[in-house]
Amino acid sequence: MSDKVLLDYGSGGKASQRLIGELFLKHFDNPELRRMNDGAVLSVGGRVAVSTDTFTVDPPFFPGGDIGALAVHGTVNDVAMMGATPRYLTCGFIIEEGLPMVELGRIVESMGAAARAAGVDIVTGDTKVVPKGAVDKIFINTTGIGDVIVDPAPAGDRAAPGDAILISGTLGDHGLAILSTRQGLAFETPLLSDCASLNHAIGALLRQLPDVHVLRDPTRGGLATTLNEIASASGVICEIVEDDIPVRAEVKGGCSLLGLDPLYLANEGKFICIVPEADAEAALAIMRADPLCGGARRIGSVLPTDKPGAPGRVLLRTGLGGKRLLGMLEGEQLPRIC
Amino acid sequence: MSDKVLLDYGSGGKASQRLIGELFLKHFDNPELRRMNDGAVLSVGGRVAVSTDTFTVDPPFFPGGDIGALAVHGTVNDVAMMGATPRYLTCGFIIEEGLPMVELGRIVESMGAAARAAGVDIVTGDTKVVPKGAVDKIFINTTGIGDVIVDPAPAGDRAAPGDAILISGTLGDHGLAILSTRQGLAFETPLLSDCASLNHAIGALLRQLPDVHVLRDPTRGGLATTLNEIASASGVICEIVEDDIPVRAEVKGGCSLLGLDPLYLANEGKFICIVPEADAEAALAIMRADPLCGGARRIGSVLPTDKPGAPGRVLLRTGLGGKRLLGMLEGEQLPRIC
Repeated sequence: MSDKVLLDYGSGGKASQRLIGELFLKHFDNPELRRMNDGAVLSVGGRVAVSTDTFTVDPPFFPGGDIGALAVHGTVNDVAMMGATPRYLTCGFIIEEGLPMVELGRIVESMGAAARAAGVDIVTGDTKVVPKGAVDKIFINTTGIGDVIVDPAPAGDRAAPGDAILISGTLGDHGLAILSTRQGLAFETPLLSDCASLNHAIGALLRQLPDVHVLRDPTRGGLATTLNEIASASGVICEIVEDDIPVRAEVKGGCSLLGLDPLYLANEGKFICIVPEADAEAALAIMRADPLCGGARRIGSVLPTDKPGAPGRVLLRTGLGGKRLLGMLEGEQLPRIC
Repeated sequence: MSDKVLLDYGSGGKASQRLIGELFLKHFDNPELRRMNDGAVLSVGGRVAVSTDTFTVDPPFFPGGDIGALAVHGTVNDVAMMGATPRYLTCGFIIEEGLPMVELGRIVESMGAAARAAGVDIVTGDTKVVPKGAVDKIFINTTGIGDVIVDPAPAGDRAAPGDAILISGTLGDHGLAILSTRQGLAFETPLLSDCASLNHAIGALLRQLPDVHVLRDPTRGGLATTLNEIASASGVICEIVEDDIPVRAEVKGGCSLLGLDPLYLANEGKFICIVPEADAEAALAIMRADPLCGGARRIGSVLPTDKPGAPGRVLLRTGLGGKRLLGMLEGEQLPRIC
């Protein structure tokens, strides 16, 4: 094959078949994909969770990951957050003509490794190569399918007054890692994206505590935006305590330098977990037993709104003892963060 | 909302929610989507067919359709070709900052109408808006999920000597419609893309003739490339008769003008059906009863290779009585055709 991706690698003809055979099958190999059909036939339970995401991250390679790993982790996590065991992924590549093959190779290899670590099979896919300038390097869509393990599933509208709000670890790592790469900022300790598949931790949690009310990964828009979605869907107040929110010192430093708020920065390997108060300690213990969630902490509580039917909102108890309303993200803080 | 798509419509924050609420929910409305979760929970049979495709067609509006309708039809067809009833679609938008909202509106409306006609629900989605220049206008990924209705499913490796090769209608309409739009060619009779969802015709066929061996839609690479994939996977010769292959006069004319071969042009509303000889007439009758397949014809037969184990290939019996080997598409005839 050429050392750059050529237009005809996406033609559906001979060159496409070579690309699939020599690169995709090598890294994604599984019986369903090997049949080389236009799709896959899968055995699943009667209730499945499905989620889709397109990844456009710029740059495609960043400290702690790349667009390929991110495309697997991001969708695996979305499916896991629905209370399901992720089992299958589809992937759709859009590649700019001329992308170095070695870069495509690294991305595909990294997707394969991420899929194996998460225990999912990439069962079918599609590759489009578009002329130079029609897309910036490479974008990847993944759609995930998983078997529902708890029903009713955790959902954004199930937060109830009295629940505890937990977070699986530090906030803002992914957003600041991407941004500092773009800006050419260097930190004493290299700042890595947290991108990782959380399905093993989620599975352990749901098997032991099936009454988890809400699971959400605070990606675009960060913790503040995701909590606002939950508060609004559930009609509750999410009150979080500033001093309890874990943020790395270098993320804090980078944020104040750049005028950013870590509560609005994207995360790609963290989740919010809202459980009945009685389950809070058990949930934290289960989370901390997973290597990706060692820094799990309780960060707040769910309260009723002042009047029945009043809109939900998010309050931050600040270090100085005051209370501040945390709104949703307004405007776009960081385009192409994921 | 603004009259152009702004970056923050893809931020995951307030503007994203407005876009989903005011545009996507309006045209795609269904209970699962309305829950506004990061994914959907679906009830399906134990065996599902899944297919994914990214659509990058240029231009996004063309005679007979647009990228939105195409994104529904294309994936609905891929799922149907797996021997399944398409039920759910996910969609992932990548939109260039500045796209006129009226264009996005037309595309989303057209997706909604196509989904209703096909009887599928768009249950979850994702929207990314990227800065100007990072993508050309709009690309759409759809992933389709359907319940398998026959098992073993029709598949590319099931063509057997003695089978009949049928086509559901004229070839090359989509490819030539796109290309003539790009080149500014005008025909006396306007040439329309054939893009349409074939699942109703496929469903009727499979319910009455469950032993259909192969179903494939000849999209990128056209009839010749798709038949080569089948011949190769099944280890057979697909012999087709030039004079029996339906091609509109204006497509023939356009192709000779532009130096293209209609057998390699993309179709978006046609399918190849390979059945045992004994089922051929019944299959044609069922196909012709569907308004989208009125021009269904038998175009050839499956033959054994000369020696057992010899590679499969495609032969064209020409109008002059000769035989010509039809290879796979080499190179890229038409980038961004779908």
